[in-house]
Amino acid sequence: MIVGQIKMRLFIFVSLFWASTFAIRPGPVIQASKGAVWPKPQQQEISETYYLIRPHSFTFKSPDHIGCPSFLDDALTRYWTIIATTISSKLEEKLWKLDDNFLGYLEILTIKLFGECPNENILPELYDNENYTLTIDSDGAVLTSETIWGVLRGLETFSQLIYSEQDTLMINATKINDFPRFPHRGFLLDTSRHFEPVPIILQMLDAMAYNKFNVFHWHITDDHSFPYKSRTYPELSDKGAYHPVRGVYEQSDVKKVIEYARVRGIRVIPEFDTPGHTRSWGVAHPELLTSCFTDNVVNGQLGPMDPTKDITYNFINNLFTEIVNVFPDSYFHIGGDEVEFDCWKSNPDVNNFMKQNNFLSYEQLESYFIQHVVNILDTLSSKYLVWEEVFVNGVELPNSTVVHIWKDNGLSTLNNVIKAGKYGLYSSCWYLSVLHSGSDWDAFYKCEPALLLHTEEEKKLLLGGEACMWGEYVNEYSVIPRVWPRASAIAERLWSDESVNDISDAQIRLEEHACRMNKRGIAAQPPNGPGVCF
Amino acid sequence: MIVGQIKMRLFIFVSLFWASTFAIRPGPVIQASKGAVWPKPQQQEISETYYLIRPHSFTFKSPDHIGCPSFLDDALTRYWTIIATTISSKLEEKLWKLDDNFLGYLEILTIKLFGECPNENILPELYDNENYTLTIDSDGAVLTSETIWGVLRGLETFSQLIYSEQDTLMINATKINDFPRFPHRGFLLDTSRHFEPVPIILQMLDAMAYNKFNVFHWHITDDHSFPYKSRTYPELSDKGAYHPVRGVYEQSDVKKVIEYARVRGIRVIPEFDTPGHTRSWGVAHPELLTSCFTDNVVNGQLGPMDPTKDITYNFINNLFTEIVNVFPDSYFHIGGDEVEFDCWKSNPDVNNFMKQNNFLSYEQLESYFIQHVVNILDTLSSKYLVWEEVFVNGVELPNSTVVHIWKDNGLSTLNNVIKAGKYGLYSSCWYLSVLHSGSDWDAFYKCEPALLLHTEEEKKLLLGGEACMWGEYVNEYSVIPRVWPRASAIAERLWSDESVNDISDAQIRLEEHACRMNKRGIAAQPPNGPGVCF
Repeated sequence: MIVGQIKMRLFIFVSLFWASTFAIRPGPVIQASKGAVWPKPQQQEISETYYLIRPHSFTFKSPDHIGCPSFLDDALTRYWTIIATTISSKLEEKLWKLDDNFLGYLEILTIKLFGECPNENILPELYDNENYTLTIDSDGAVLTSETIWGVLRGLETFSQLIYSEQDTLMINATKINDFPRFPHRGFLLDTSRHFEPVPIILQMLDAMAYNKFNVFHWHITDDHSFPYKSRTYPELSDKGAYHPVRGVYEQSDVKKVIEYARVRGIRVIPEFDTPGHTRSWGVAHPELLTSCFTDNVVNGQLGPMDPTKDITYNFINNLFTEIVNVFPDSYFHIGGDEVEFDCWKSNPDVNNFMKQNNFLSYEQLESYFIQHVVNILDTLSSKYLVWEEVFVNGVELPNSTVVHIWKDNGLSTLNNVIKAGKYGLYSSCWYLSVLHSGSDWDAFYKCEPALLLHTEEEKKLLLGGEACMWGEYVNEYSVIPRVWPRASAIAERLWSDESVNDISDAQIRLEEHACRMNKRGIAAQPPNGPGVCF
Repeated sequence: MIVGQIKMRLFIFVSLFWASTFAIRPGPVIQASKGAVWPKPQQQEISETYYLIRPHSFTFKSPDHIGCPSFLDDALTRYWTIIATTISSKLEEKLWKLDDNFLGYLEILTIKLFGECPNENILPELYDNENYTLTIDSDGAVLTSETIWGVLRGLETFSQLIYSEQDTLMINATKINDFPRFPHRGFLLDTSRHFEPVPIILQMLDAMAYNKFNVFHWHITDDHSFPYKSRTYPELSDKGAYHPVRGVYEQSDVKKVIEYARVRGIRVIPEFDTPGHTRSWGVAHPELLTSCFTDNVVNGQLGPMDPTKDITYNFINNLFTEIVNVFPDSYFHIGGDEVEFDCWKSNPDVNNFMKQNNFLSYEQLESYFIQHVVNILDTLSSKYLVWEEVFVNGVELPNSTVVHIWKDNGLSTLNNVIKAGKYGLYSSCWYLSVLHSGSDWDAFYKCEPALLLHTEEEKKLLLGGEACMWGEYVNEYSVIPRVWPRASAIAERLWSDESVNDISDAQIRLEEHACRMNKRGIAAQPPNGPGVCF
């Protein structure tokens, strides 16, 4: 029954031919695929045989998971709704030319969740097993996984296999064995440069699930605003947010985001960047920041955090104790990037402190600061991620540290990080704030983070990567079309096999996937030029 | 009472100082102005004295226009709603520290429309008088204009002068004498590469009015789709639109767009681009397009329109007769850009035809085609715009023709156009599809189209310009944040005096204007980096 990839190959060939002759062809530049999965599964065989689906006589059955977390039930409801409402179909039965490939009406997807029934409050974690298999053949449809996370990924895949033909839902017989290439597939959102309302964050989480991202890196504070409403230090956002009420994330908002993410198998890692990128902290607590001097006279300006004072570390300790409590993930991103030394250099007290401690460089002073923060997190039993400067400047870090690489020569820095036995996370080529005219997802897609890694041991230390949406030039009105489907290119790089790097094949599937997101309410922009999504 | 621009100058100085020290400052990078007008009026004096406004006891009075077009009443309602609902205010009266500058509560704006009471069905036209004066002083507020169009522009200005301070509406005493620099201030929207639903077009028209644009150039058809539902040839969109129902503009849609534009003082100029950019015409009418050959054998592909056949011109005549009837503006954009000659070169019949007519170049053949189209429009008493190639290729054009310049060396082409006594319209530097990372409106802003024009006669032949939003990479979800506020930069270049070109002054006002558009429901993206709009 499974005829291998013959039909798919034929399909791709026809599409490429179509595209290459478009100089005389009206219509979309890239003809979208139908029922192709994004990101591409590790192994998929696809057949010409097919089922039809009538949403209202279709159900999920999951005999093994009775009593398992109710969020699996919620996921089934969510995906049933997606199938029934976002793929074009008409209720009235159409006359359909049934051919030899017709297998009947698919009425059940059986979900087999092996292994222990998970705890109701189970959290997604690094290294979760997300593997699943999905078989649709003449015997029906079965999704199997050892974990609830694999079931979620498989449901996403199942929903993407269904497509519309003459207003009828179809699904081809197929056999999928799928698993992620990398365990950390992240999306960073900066909510400091512009405030992003909670509904926008929830939409991002939906779209992340549609792309099998599994980490929401919440770059929640920065120089420009401090939108996190702390229980310990509410004055930080009272004074440092763009608005003390409309520009803050209340504790209930944060809970909502974390729970919305959790049930989609998405971890939420908060970042409270220090000692730079902290100007907004200084509105309520100027004493935390270094006083800058001009010609040995204090000039009223404030620089990075003051690394010489105990109050700085006490404050961080109190705040981070809260953060570790509010954000249940075992990782915390403590920043450490782009510390400007000018203010430290200008300050006589800082320089005296350095002499007393025999620090020969400001990098050493920065390391001293980070070492204190790292010690605080060790005490709190939290693991951490740091931006690459922390590693490059020589801070002593335990091997559990994840070094987040973002600068231009990222591949060689990554190599150094991994050679030093640390974990690496890659973002250098995945800054969504970098724009080019026209179609600009291909550079994200072609970027291969493991290029310089050769052994299996080395590759295991590369945890994955993150698409970064810095907030300077996006607001709530523009951030979703700016991110999607450009971040989808990164999602496929992080999930699919390294060999999946054919732009021509990808653009056909991305054309469908962007339209699929549109139909699910995600305001994705067009990926490939002229086209249509009805 | 009027203290000149002292306060405004002080304000700008403070803002620049603020911006230059932002390395230590949290909050928005650019602090928005309050009550600054975009595009900047030709002459404005502003005072520190001010009125407060309570929306529910504020009215427009226009004694002179009783019996004048009801759309003036509609405009007053529209602007009353904008003032009452989109500028932050609280109904309860606040304790307000009234100082010596307080002039009282402004309860009436008197509108004096001089001149004839216009016809109910009056259409905006090229060279309409849009001048107005607006005086707000201790005697109250008066808007005067000789035309209904000037009243519309003045109402927009009035609505922008009002700002919110401690949740109370304020307006400073001011004296404005305003008029546009150019009579043609256009925005081109391409609805062929992606279909843009009517509600999106109406939002664009709203935003255009907020920026004093006065021409909607509707690039309605192109290679990829033909969304205009013709009465004469409905098969063009039945077969050539992306979808025969969901991808078309019905006659009723077109009427709605034209009327929505008209009452905002915006002309609608349709473009039906020929002889290139017509692949979508060929789905229903392949006989209109040139058959392409390989080695003297027809290869099944179709090129530009076939300039050798009478049926081509008969068809265009019939269709354009309809278009001139449907679109009431006296101008019609007939395209003429980017005609590829390869297919013509390959076709033996075309080459024979050229021999018979002693054509020595394909440019001559193209000119022959355009000459026929131009003759058709002359018969229909319609004036026309053409893309620059038509002029460059030497088509004989009457002096009423407007040559639309879009290529890179636009300033010198414009110079040639004007030296030849034709009208010029400029777009070379105003392609909104050209993207750069970060803030990218300044290049649009700095572009000065009249750079090479010296005499008053020359300058008069430059009608203005158009911001062009080509549709390849924008869809209904992304087009509005892509256009706004980037097109606002072009709006100011086209309306304000040539001397208004200070980026530092502009960015403060654009920060306010983008937020103003957000509050009015336009999904504008941020212009200047980190910021906030609540």
